[in-house]
Amino acid sequence: MPEPALVLTNGYYDTVFAKTTHGLVRGPSRYWISGVVDAEHAGQDAGRLLDGMERGIPIWSCVAAALEASNPRPTHCIVGVATVGGRLPASLRADLEEAARAGLTLVNGLHQLLSEDDRIRVLAQGRIIDIRRPRAASALRFWTGEVRAIPALRIAVLGMDCAIGKRTTAMLIREACRAAGLGAEVIYTGQTGWLQGLEYGFIFDATLNDFVSGELEGAILRCYQETRPDVILLEGQSALRNPSGPAGAELICSGDAQGVILQHAPRREYFEDFEEIECRIPPLEEEIELIGLLGAKVWAITLFTRGMTPKAAGTEAGAIEAACGIPVVCPLIDGVARIVDIIRGQLAAW
Amino acid sequence: MPEPALVLTNGYYDTVFAKTTHGLVRGPSRYWISGVVDAEHAGQDAGRLLDGMERGIPIWSCVAAALEASNPRPTHCIVGVATVGGRLPASLRADLEEAARAGLTLVNGLHQLLSEDDRIRVLAQGRIIDIRRPRAASALRFWTGEVRAIPALRIAVLGMDCAIGKRTTAMLIREACRAAGLGAEVIYTGQTGWLQGLEYGFIFDATLNDFVSGELEGAILRCYQETRPDVILLEGQSALRNPSGPAGAELICSGDAQGVILQHAPRREYFEDFEEIECRIPPLEEEIELIGLLGAKVWAITLFTRGMTPKAAGTEAGAIEAACGIPVVCPLIDGVARIVDIIRGQLAAW
Repeated sequence: MPEPALVLTNGYYDTVFAKTTHGLVRGPSRYWISGVVDAEHAGQDAGRLLDGMERGIPIWSCVAAALEASNPRPTHCIVGVATVGGRLPASLRADLEEAARAGLTLVNGLHQLLSEDDRIRVLAQGRIIDIRRPRAASALRFWTGEVRAIPALRIAVLGMDCAIGKRTTAMLIREACRAAGLGAEVIYTGQTGWLQGLEYGFIFDATLNDFVSGELEGAILRCYQETRPDVILLEGQSALRNPSGPAGAELICSGDAQGVILQHAPRREYFEDFEEIECRIPPLEEEIELIGLLGAKVWAITLFTRGMTPKAAGTEAGAIEAACGIPVVCPLIDGVARIVDIIRGQLAAW
Repeated sequence: MPEPALVLTNGYYDTVFAKTTHGLVRGPSRYWISGVVDAEHAGQDAGRLLDGMERGIPIWSCVAAALEASNPRPTHCIVGVATVGGRLPASLRADLEEAARAGLTLVNGLHQLLSEDDRIRVLAQGRIIDIRRPRAASALRFWTGEVRAIPALRIAVLGMDCAIGKRTTAMLIREACRAAGLGAEVIYTGQTGWLQGLEYGFIFDATLNDFVSGELEGAILRCYQETRPDVILLEGQSALRNPSGPAGAELICSGDAQGVILQHAPRREYFEDFEEIECRIPPLEEEIELIGLLGAKVWAITLFTRGMTPKAAGTEAGAIEAACGIPVVCPLIDGVARIVDIIRGQLAAW
């Protein structure tokens, strides 16, 4: 049984910065999520607050309250927010120190390493897992091209922006493929994927740039050798033209993805966190063209529908499908059966 | 006066792996290059062997011979090769150890850090400069968008492949702009740029991926604040679709480059070092389109002409210019005056 863990999001649970936590609440998870600590939302159910589905994960006002009430007692405490630049938000420090004092193992996916924080290191007495700790060049792999011989279909799940649902869509497609009898794996590229228990992958943004392509290839090779799936989904990061960190070309060029599932937020005008400087997300049609030039084809567009009624989402989807001539799906509303059919078709034609 | 330095290329001087050394021989350099150590080419002049121009830089058979004959005695010893994956070639180890024993400071731009090599560290007694030592996330900068307000024209010098002359072209354009009375700076993104004495930049491929855009922006901001140039040239790395490490989108999207100078090797069919797996360089016309979608315009194409006669190069240039409708220049044959005119025009129109 996975170890029970508390997740800290103090003040952030209902923001995109808590997307790590949303993934863990939605599941799957490497840990058994016993509760969330967020004073602002204390007393509510984390699942119901996320998407209306009760999941028996209570939100607590503080670590002490959570520990007192939880059975089994959590052994791990996860930093549940991902901030721009990967810094620890001030509001989480007191909770973290409390968890460390209570003997919990701290699990952290921020760039800011807890094991390099003198105060927390002393309190935690070595019980720290820094997921995003960079590895030295000597431990990293350079690209060789071996990936091009892998007989599993590779699909990059890219997005028009950060925090737009790429990982969630990839996980849903994996589940739907498996339910339909296809072998499917997701290569994680972020800390949340690791936290969700994915076996193959690497932390894209904490990798020395020269080795991103080789590490991606290495993860795909290991995944194929050990699981022989029909389909390997590659979790995208950021967006191809996000100025704060363009990414995605590696998945197509180095991961040699044949197809792309492109996650899109029809009502988002500016790149996440760059609204104030009016940093506009470029047009969807251009992105499809760009992906084509990089060497892959967009097989489906998936919509980020938070805050939209199912009816409004359906209308958006229909309009985009008509304009682009590519199937458009709302994964969290309609499921992804249609994408499984597309994948079946691509496998048959490959 | 810059410190005198020996450069080690044992067995590699006439290969693209010695491009770092070629840049230092061609100049400028942070050090005064007193000689090259390469047994295979001992007795020749490094400049003459490179491009026919005598430069008074002798090639020696070993470090001892170089030290005996050089006056002033070199104080530094530079690893003059850049290998795939950044590993130290076996042929250089003995030379490096000899240089360390002789009291020289070792300067190394490989991913493989000399300060983490037990044997060399002991011999060098701390006299090691590892240019490509990665910096921790806490020392790195995240992208903010401030670069978009900089009133200097930004030009990305991209290429169709690695080791194709991007940095050399950028340096030539800088010199030609300065000679024409324009303020021009180059932002380095590789170890050779640093070795050539450039003030502003960062080592792109040794940077944690999440901070590449912010470090690039930070270098541009510092450069502008301190030198107020008319033009800032951004040194490209790799190529937009090089599967071993796609790069360049950052220069356009995060560096907010208005224009691109695109370095092209008309006779190179496969990506450098991936000839055996027939990893083909995609068409030039597509690259121009791709750059357009990323948000910049190709203002000129520059040719890598090694191994071509001036006449053959001119014929190639003419054919490409006719096909693409973009000015094509052979920097090492014709100079870059035509590019300075283009930049003047762009500055006037901006």
